Order: sequence, then structure tokens, then C-alpha cells
Amino acid sequence: MYGRKPVLEALQTAGVKAFRLHLAQTNKQAAILEQIEALASQQGAEICYHSRAELSRISKNSKQDQGVCADMVCPGFADLDHFIEHNQNRAFELIALDKITNPQNLGMIIRSVAAGFCDGLLLPEKGSAQIDPLVIKASAGTVFKAKILRCPDLPNALAKLQSIGAKVACLAGDGDPTFANIDAHKQRVFVLGNETDGVSAETNKASDYRVAIPMNNGVESLNVAVTASLLAYRKHLQ
Amino acid sequence: MYGRKPVLEALQTAGVKAFRLHLAQTNKQAAILEQIEALASQQGAEICYHSRAELSRISKNSKQDQGVCADMVCPGFADLDHFIEHNQNRAFELIALDKITNPQNLGMIIRSVAAGFCDGLLLPEKGSAQIDPLVIKASAGTVFKAKILRCPDLPNALAKLQSIGAKVACLAGDGDPTFANIDAHKQRVFVLGNETDGVSAETNKASDYRVAIPMNNGVESLNVAVTASLLAYRKHLQ
Repeated sequence: MYGRKPVLEALQTAGVKAFRLHLAQTNKQAAILEQIEALASQQGAEICYHSRAELSRISKNSKQDQGVCADMVCPGFADLDHFIEHNQNRAFELIALDKITNPQNLGMIIRSVAAGFCDGLLLPEKGSAQIDPLVIKASAGTVFKAKILRCPDLPNALAKLQSIGAKVACLAGDGDPTFANIDAHKQRVFVLGNETDGVSAETNKASDYRVAIPMNNGVESLNVAVTASLLAYRKHLQ
Repeated sequence: MYGRKPVLEALQTAGVKAFRLHLAQTNKQAAILEQIEALASQQGAEICYHSRAELSRISKNSKQDQGVCADMVCPGFADLDHFIEHNQNRAFELIALDKITNPQNLGMIIRSVAAGFCDGLLLPEKGSAQIDPLVIKASAGTVFKAKILRCPDLPNALAKLQSIGAKVACLAGDGDPTFANIDAHKQRVFVLGNETDGVSAETNKASDYRVAIPMNNGVESLNVAVTASLLAYRKHLQ
């Protein structure tokens, strides 16, 4: 992650740590930089000084890094292959995102999934909002605590999960509100579609079921972060 | 409500109607005004023309009304006294808001509560965000369909509800995650506090219970709109 205030706030969050702090040699002295360095040192992070050009290569966003980058400890991050290897024969329920591009929504989804009772959030690199300062803020820092499974793209990820027996259910307005069929399987993936377009045609075609959250009073859809929260708490909240 | 685009969008929403359209006589001809007038006429709304000064008195926001106001049909709106009169001896579950000031959150809460399974949203006039175009947008137009109970202020409203036997539960991080005690009563009110400060001391003191949504992975709180959604769907989603 990058940016002075975002990095400082992350380091100040309980349970969140950096393992490496990158600073530009061109940074002028500033109270916030001293705070960042002190916190990173306390946490045992390695502190590295780079030329401005080198730091840009690390942050990949020289316009907004403000001379500060941090490699964060994210114990919940894993790639999907690793997850599959360790959960082939166990029950699990995942929530997968199909082209969620609004950082506010992505952050809220991460926060709710982290707090809730599902086994992870499947976040494809292709088509999703990047985990940037906006997302980190909207997640209230929970992005560093959440079980987030990364994969290059969603269609291949879903195919891999189906190959071990998991069933894939798209959320769709006209889906089955009982969840009965999907619930009959012990390995399940719920796919949430883009804020405007819903689940993509490709994902829809590959899915095993279409399910819906029941809605009253003629409401036609829920916010995607709210839907994620209801799924994450579906079985467990009383 | 007021503003050209907000009024137009509201009139275009399925199931949403105006019963009176107010226009400033000083409005210059514009395609959007013709659209608004045509839709309002189709819906049988009365169309009134006012001086600019008179319209300002109606919109109460001359800077943003753009010469257009509409009185909307909100069949779900009621005041709390009316609700109490008709539900004294019935079971109900309400969600009450204690100083929710962020329009985005208020809109999302209205949307989720409208879709969910509780009996209404208790929205005090004092201390809450106003139902303005931002809220209407964030609610995805559901503000016109939701059961919203208005009351002047929260403390008196909660006292009235308690006087007919309802129990009041504040959401609090250190509350009871089982909801067991509150669930023993057939008339219940959950109070959600302000985004930063939580439930106010006054409300806390007056409440019968403190309850909590269980959270994993060291997450300390949920977004208030997510909490409202979980409460609205708590008993009914499977």
C-alpha cells in the first residue's frame, strides 16, 4: 500500500503490521514520516530507502504514493490454489466477486466478509477494483485481517472449484430464494455481480444455480455490499 | 422533494408517484421540465405554478430546487403515534436510528429495511440526515416504498414504545450476541447509533438491552447500513 496517511492509519490499526517500509530518499523531514518510521520500527519492519524512480516502481502510483510505501502482513491473504489444496475434502462457503469496480463497495464487502461466517472472499485480479487507499479506508482496515483468496480471473477460478465438487450459485433477481439446492452441497460459492450489470453472461452460464435474496415492498435489488453481508451471516446470525 | 433530475428520476421509478408538482413561473423552457410535467400529468398529479419566492418557501432550499418541487405519494410513511395506535397488541420489530447523519448510510439503510422483514424504520426528525436528493439516490428510490415512521425525537419515541410494552435494544460492541432476551418479547425496537459515536448516552440509559452482531477475525464494527440489513433480515433469511 502507499500514501502517508493511509500507511500511518494502517500501522495504527490494532493487529495490522508492515513487514517492510519503503521511503523515498527525496522525502523532506515531516512529523507524519517520523510517526510512520517509529511505528514500523516498533513492529519490527525492515526500513528501506530508495531513489524516487525506484519507489515509483514499487508503488506503481508515483502520483499518489507521497514517497511512502509499505508491504503489509496480510495473514488472511492466500491464493485460490493454496486454499483448494487445503480444503478439498472439507465443507466451505465462499463469496466470489464478478467485476466489482466501486472501491467503496469492495471495502464494505471485505469488512462484512471478514466479520462474517463464510470461509473467504474470492477476489479476481482481472476486472476488480484494486486494493487501494480508498478500498482500505472503506474496509475500515479489515482488508488486512480478512480471508481474501486471490486468483487471476473468475471463470478459471470457478472451474477449478467445480472440479473438486463445489457448486457455484449466482445471485440473480429471479433466482431461487430458498437456497435449498445450493445448501445441499457442502462446498459452495456465491457469486456477486457488478453493481450495474449483475453477474456476467460467462459466469452465469458456468454457474450451477441462480439464487436470490427475498425482497419485500417492491424493492428490486439490494446494494452489493449488503448482499455480501447477508450471505456472510446467512447461516449464523440469529 | 426538489431538483430537476431528482424529481424526474423519482417519477420514472416504478411504483413512485407525485400527487402535486410545483414549478416556478420563472422557469425557462427546457426538455427536462417538459418530461417532468408530462410524467406528473400522466400520474394524475396536480400541477401548480408559483412565484420564485413562493417556490422557495415550499422547497425550503432555493439554492438547489432548480425551480421544481414535488409532493410525493409515500404510502409507507406514517407517524409513530399512528403506528402505535394500530399495533398496540400486535407483535412487531422496528429499527430506530439515533443520529445517523451520513446521507449515503441513511439511503442504504432505507433500501435494506424496505426490502427486509422488519415492521418499519423509526426515523427521528431531530438529529437525522434529511431525506434529500442524496438520500433518495442512495436508497435507489426505495424511500418512497419503505415503511418509515417519523417522530420528532428519539427519546420520547422510545419512551412511548416502552409504555405499550415494547423493549428497546441498543446495538453495542459489548452487547449480547444471542439476542435471546430481546427475542423473548413480541414488541421490539433495535436502535442503531451514529457512525462515529455509536448510540448516545441518553438512548443507552433508556434502553432495556444491549445486543451485538457477532464478529470474527478481530473486526471491531460493521458499517451501520450493514448492521441495519442484518437486523432487517435476521429472522427471515435462510
